[in-house]
Amino acid sequence: MRISDLSRQSGVPVATIKYYLRERLLRPGTPTARNQAEYDASHLQRLRLIRAFTNIGQLDLSSVRELIEATEDEDLPLPKLYEVVNRALFPGHHVPGDPDGLARAWLEVTNFIDGLGWRVELDAPGRDTLAHVRAALVRLGCESEMEFFTPFAAAAERLAVLELSLVPTESTVADRAAAVVRTVLFEVALAALRRLAHEHYLTQREELTYPLAPAVA
Amino acid sequence: MRISDLSRQSGVPVATIKYYLRERLLRPGTPTARNQAEYDASHLQRLRLIRAFTNIGQLDLSSVRELIEATEDEDLPLPKLYEVVNRALFPGHHVPGDPDGLARAWLEVTNFIDGLGWRVELDAPGRDTLAHVRAALVRLGCESEMEFFTPFAAAAERLAVLELSLVPTESTVADRAAAVVRTVLFEVALAALRRLAHEHYLTQREELTYPLAPAVA
Repeated sequence: MRISDLSRQSGVPVATIKYYLRERLLRPGTPTARNQAEYDASHLQRLRLIRAFTNIGQLDLSSVRELIEATEDEDLPLPKLYEVVNRALFPGHHVPGDPDGLARAWLEVTNFIDGLGWRVELDAPGRDTLAHVRAALVRLGCESEMEFFTPFAAAAERLAVLELSLVPTESTVADRAAAVVRTVLFEVALAALRRLAHEHYLTQREELTYPLAPAVA
Repeated sequence: MRISDLSRQSGVPVATIKYYLRERLLRPGTPTARNQAEYDASHLQRLRLIRAFTNIGQLDLSSVRELIEATEDEDLPLPKLYEVVNRALFPGHHVPGDPDGLARAWLEVTNFIDGLGWRVELDAPGRDTLAHVRAALVRLGCESEMEFFTPFAAAAERLAVLELSLVPTESTVADRAAAVVRTVLFEVALAALRRLAHEHYLTQREELTYPLAPAVA
């Protein structure tokens, strides 16, 4: 197909496709004439992948590039692939000041992770993020017990095991791409479901407290 | 305290504090001399709140302003407060093209939410986000069954009920602020925990498949 068809089918403007081509996020098409090239289903799939990462996963293009390169590098072991995903997804937190609070939070988080029996790298971005969350909650006086994270960890564990069961040990590039897509998109889905659950249960509770209409006997 | 102390204690540069003052995200201090004002613990707390939202929650300042205003508006019912939070947290997805796929996904998501027994607004941002995730998964050929969301919904439900149990029905501004902070920060924490669980279980699995060292008999 021509670039205009690729644009129509993917919903990505031609100018953006040309930008992705220049940035080598998209492989060049097969030249058919001066200033004209033929694209195929693999280009369409790649565009959909880029758009899912940028529009839904809110990733920037350099993270998208890193993710795609890691996905296609079949020599990269799966745990390393997930490390790349984690780095791409955590933007890094710059909270100057309060280094004491952060150091304390980091230790609490590390004890908590050890208590779960999870073995993760000391510099895993998730550990750092959790320490920042913990430090902020303490600073803001919102939550005093580290144990409040326990049900969140239990939920995360169940879901992670389920997701990984879909990733074969001997994975193809397609398997790896699907694993990365799920990691990015299910995070967004989980957040959306949690907010929907908030809305439902809160509305239900308020109606019980202040019934909208008198109950019919 | 003076603005320099406020800066030191919060870790926020003086220039940024002045910017927040101009933008009315921070209440002015009490004037003590020309070009000098006195700040108190409430200013420090507000700065910490802004930083938690921007640095950890990755929100922009206009969303932060909306959140703070809604939190302090005691006439706003709790469900409305959560609606404001949800709007602030979902950046809105612009996926042009494939409107059919999106419309189909929206119906599937709506059936799924109905099946859970959740009553949420038709225009709830979470519903829209979930439809975009679903449409992207289908487009990318990653997941064919809507049922895969079920354990995610179950986890979201458990956590939401737990979180809401911390929010009193007769809530003060402080209760409401804590509820908003938790909603933003626990989302980040949950994502971090899920990634850590991925890392742990994946490493464990790879070691079982390819032992790092021969087992000692």
